[in-house]
Amino acid sequence: MLLDRINRPNDIRKFKHEELNPLAKEIREFLIQTVSENGGHLASNLGAVELTMALHLALHFPEDKLVWDVGHQSYTHKLLTGRKDRFDTLRKHGGLSGFPKTNESACDAFNTGHSSTSISAALGLATARDLKGENYRVACVIGDGALTGGMAFEALNNAALLKKNFIIVLNDNTMSISKNVGGLPAHLSNIRTTGAYKDLKEGIKASLNKIPLYGEKMVHNIQSTKSSLKQLLIPGMIFENLGLTYLGPYDGHDIMTMYRAFVEAENIEGPVVVHVVTQKGKGYIHAERHPARFHGTGAFCVESGLPKKKQTLANYTNVFSTVMVKMGERNQNVIAITAAMEDGVGLKRFHNRYPERFFDVGIAEGHAVTFAAGLAKEGFVPVVAVYSSFLQRAFDQIVHDVCMQSLHVVFAIDRAGLVGADGQTHQGVLDVSYMMSIPNMTVMAPKNKWELSDMLKFAIAFDGPISLRYPRGQAYSDLKQMRNPIEYGKSEMLQQGKNIAILALGNMVKIAVEVVEQLKNQGVLATLINARFAMPFDQDRIRELADEHTLLVTMEENVRSGGFGEHVGLFVKEENIELDVLTIALPDDYIEQGSVDELFEEVGLDATSVSKRILAQYEK
Amino acid sequence: MLLDRINRPNDIRKFKHEELNPLAKEIREFLIQTVSENGGHLASNLGAVELTMALHLALHFPEDKLVWDVGHQSYTHKLLTGRKDRFDTLRKHGGLSGFPKTNESACDAFNTGHSSTSISAALGLATARDLKGENYRVACVIGDGALTGGMAFEALNNAALLKKNFIIVLNDNTMSISKNVGGLPAHLSNIRTTGAYKDLKEGIKASLNKIPLYGEKMVHNIQSTKSSLKQLLIPGMIFENLGLTYLGPYDGHDIMTMYRAFVEAENIEGPVVVHVVTQKGKGYIHAERHPARFHGTGAFCVESGLPKKKQTLANYTNVFSTVMVKMGERNQNVIAITAAMEDGVGLKRFHNRYPERFFDVGIAEGHAVTFAAGLAKEGFVPVVAVYSSFLQRAFDQIVHDVCMQSLHVVFAIDRAGLVGADGQTHQGVLDVSYMMSIPNMTVMAPKNKWELSDMLKFAIAFDGPISLRYPRGQAYSDLKQMRNPIEYGKSEMLQQGKNIAILALGNMVKIAVEVVEQLKNQGVLATLINARFAMPFDQDRIRELADEHTLLVTMEENVRSGGFGEHVGLFVKEENIELDVLTIALPDDYIEQGSVDELFEEVGLDATSVSKRILAQYEK
Repeated sequence: MLLDRINRPNDIRKFKHEELNPLAKEIREFLIQTVSENGGHLASNLGAVELTMALHLALHFPEDKLVWDVGHQSYTHKLLTGRKDRFDTLRKHGGLSGFPKTNESACDAFNTGHSSTSISAALGLATARDLKGENYRVACVIGDGALTGGMAFEALNNAALLKKNFIIVLNDNTMSISKNVGGLPAHLSNIRTTGAYKDLKEGIKASLNKIPLYGEKMVHNIQSTKSSLKQLLIPGMIFENLGLTYLGPYDGHDIMTMYRAFVEAENIEGPVVVHVVTQKGKGYIHAERHPARFHGTGAFCVESGLPKKKQTLANYTNVFSTVMVKMGERNQNVIAITAAMEDGVGLKRFHNRYPERFFDVGIAEGHAVTFAAGLAKEGFVPVVAVYSSFLQRAFDQIVHDVCMQSLHVVFAIDRAGLVGADGQTHQGVLDVSYMMSIPNMTVMAPKNKWELSDMLKFAIAFDGPISLRYPRGQAYSDLKQMRNPIEYGKSEMLQQGKNIAILALGNMVKIAVEVVEQLKNQGVLATLINARFAMPFDQDRIRELADEHTLLVTMEENVRSGGFGEHVGLFVKEENIELDVLTIALPDDYIEQGSVDELFEEVGLDATSVSKRILAQYEK
Repeated sequence: MLLDRINRPNDIRKFKHEELNPLAKEIREFLIQTVSENGGHLASNLGAVELTMALHLALHFPEDKLVWDVGHQSYTHKLLTGRKDRFDTLRKHGGLSGFPKTNESACDAFNTGHSSTSISAALGLATARDLKGENYRVACVIGDGALTGGMAFEALNNAALLKKNFIIVLNDNTMSISKNVGGLPAHLSNIRTTGAYKDLKEGIKASLNKIPLYGEKMVHNIQSTKSSLKQLLIPGMIFENLGLTYLGPYDGHDIMTMYRAFVEAENIEGPVVVHVVTQKGKGYIHAERHPARFHGTGAFCVESGLPKKKQTLANYTNVFSTVMVKMGERNQNVIAITAAMEDGVGLKRFHNRYPERFFDVGIAEGHAVTFAAGLAKEGFVPVVAVYSSFLQRAFDQIVHDVCMQSLHVVFAIDRAGLVGADGQTHQGVLDVSYMMSIPNMTVMAPKNKWELSDMLKFAIAFDGPISLRYPRGQAYSDLKQMRNPIEYGKSEMLQQGKNIAILALGNMVKIAVEVVEQLKNQGVLATLINARFAMPFDQDRIRELADEHTLLVTMEENVRSGGFGEHVGLFVKEENIELDVLTIALPDDYIEQGSVDELFEEVGLDATSVSKRILAQYEK
């Protein structure tokens, strides 16, 4: 095995040229094997094997700094930097992260997870290098999708101004950008380095000179912006317009070609965009055919490409998906908006049924929200479906464009709560806090799949900014019989007990049901209330509870700071309601990867831990 | 007076051509007069007089929809849509807003205030129109500065995809974009409509055809993207690359030329960028010479251009400015970063002294924060100086790029609290909530100008994400003698009393001092504590207070939801500390314009109102 010779950073530099492609093959097999067992991001990693190898030939670690945009395509980088032995722990609790982590290896220059941050971070690293008078190399790798995020544009704009030497690798897997720049054949790249390009340049110059009055001046102007002619001919115009040097496109599976391009880029002053074209899923037939399915996958059978565990129970995303299709039919004003997550948030069916009312705006959460506000202003009902942690990108747009005008935009916040194996960057644990602090925003969370349906319908029939949050994974389908109509700001009594009252938000109802059961086994008959609304929460209910209860427990899958429990706790305190309070929430911290069950135990949000805390407090 | 004939929307359409320039002159005089009395945004409005008039000739209100990016340049629009009579109330409490407001006039299509939102909103309005099968016109006006905001790019990208008919007026006042596109003379615009352009096109085609193999195919490809040749010749390449039609540049003070361009744009399918070049401050000599000073101005003398009220007392921004210069000298690792607000946040002197350590990244708060994270990762101490309400744009970057890696970035949050005449969009009333909810973030607020200095030094010497917030306007300079060293997480005892303890955050100490005085006059000797830290707050102090106090009052200039008081209140409740609590905060609402004193009274945050509330609670 060639892979046996890869043990420490830079070991790849000792390989002979002819060994590189066989090594790539071994790496692919290794990745397929690992991901088939642990799950993870496969298609993007298979696409980036040769690219990563070429970067590791051109750079030296850990001195040189490499930033991976989003970061889920960094598996080969991890393999090549001494983490092969721990690869079986990938994405597991306590194991290797599926994303770059500076605390995991000195070869990870910057943590990533969300899209479009890499150019900003790399520009910071390059600027720091120059200020210190050092000379390490800086590079980042950004996908064509991530480049639609506005932050990437802000960074390109700033990079052109600062003129720092660093390499921006555009890893174009022909998903988004190709539509714009793919009109010219990839062969055009050759023209630049052959006589044809020079001839062409002279020919155009002669043509321009023939034009009276303006021609000569124009030639001068065009020459002074050295790249204008290239802009006419090659698909990097937009970068050159911004003032960046563009090289490419190159075959993203040809290691030595890319290596030479990176070396060439190092010798150019200022930021250089190196455009490489890769294929998602490359080298694994099932992933090549179904790159979306193998973007992020659970464990699967290598031979058939089929999931090992067939998912039979509906998850919340499926339920959302189904209800959206229904609502799209019932209400012609309902519009669905996603920021490049059509599959992830469950809008494929809506898209197919109502293509004119479906909008995928690219990785652009900020724009998505203000675009929705524009639609709402004219009477439509946009449903912005988005992962909790990504919605953080649109905080100001929610505050400034939706809620300040009190526009009827529905926020369907998926992956709210702990998401598991993706870890820190993807945990959706702040949305209750940030949404509750925004004036005019209504914040809801359903207890089970039936209630998700009811709340989505309620939200669509509402008037004003409104949100509902629901977690990743299997939808809770118990308590079907508890389906009282949703009333604005009102909670739902699930079980009347006494002394202890549990007010659980959303997904926490599921845990609370177990808690109530455990308490019952201890001889304590607790009251269980489904909060439904975090903002406004049900103040009347809380006041009433004081009659027959002494302890009010709030439960939420969100950080404590600024969350549901804090709002309730202050209310109880200020109103002098005679109830002790116990706030069960996530710790005010970033929570690492693991299965959701493992994580719940770790942070004490599992039923047993919660029961113990409640009893301890109650018996105090 | 021609202006007498402007009373209702569309009145301008009744004017003869030769009356337009004289009308523009009257409008300018009217604007100068009003702003000289009320203060406001002058330079941008003087620059946009003819542009607005041309738009009002081309559009019909309120049927057509016009969105003003940022919106502080909409004064002429307000004049032309029936608001002349109320213009003396501009920016005053209860008066006309300095920004577009849909609830002020049906002719204001969408509220704005923050930068770079207009294309997203206009795209939403245009999409809604097409879905409804209506045919009103949609336009937005965006400055060259606002175009550096990533959100504008996200919207351009999406607009090109959706191909909706609307006009994007690029109001280029030669501040940012001109550097990129200004290389070609404005006359180039003429070429497009004359024979020269056609000749040129043929000449280039002939040259291309001479190239063997690739030439013919290339010509075909270039022809199929109809705009490629224009891209070579005119300064709108970047827009055409994105797939938008570009017209211009036009003289932004030539009404009829712009009018014709808008009419031409209406007849083009898909989004059209109309580029007009204007001069900030046009027509008022002092504003032409000092556009930055007249960007946002207080009342001034029309003749001399000098402020009516000479500011003698230092404001917080000045103090920050001075300390930054000092710290820049003492610590070579200190870096200053601003998102296009060098003047506003007080970094001009730092820039002059340490140009290599000063970075203005454009209107790009998200990038600013992640760029800072990159610098911090390599050991520098970036100070990101930013207005509170604009920092909302970087919420995710603070969460994901700074705090998750616990990087030492200092956030100097200016304009935190009520800002006065700019109103709703600019009030900095959420930052305590959103910063407190972010794990690893330290949140401070100084009581007076000396403490701002001490806290900034403390923050720079710290290690980890840390922020300090301070309000707009005159710095509090009492309590100079109370200057105990800053200790992490510790509050400062200002006056020991009993029964009632006031725990005031930042600027609220100033009000609390008055409150204590008023209470004293009522025979109540209250304890006054300067909180200093909101996160982590001083739990020990609060526990100790229970000995000699019965009521704890928290005071903060931030919304109640998720704010300082909620955190403290829940702590007191959960820990069963024997204190009643009273939470004094801003209401969970958007607060309109007015002087800060007026607004404080309105929301009950003035000393008299607070004293009354405290006594009422205490005597209950």
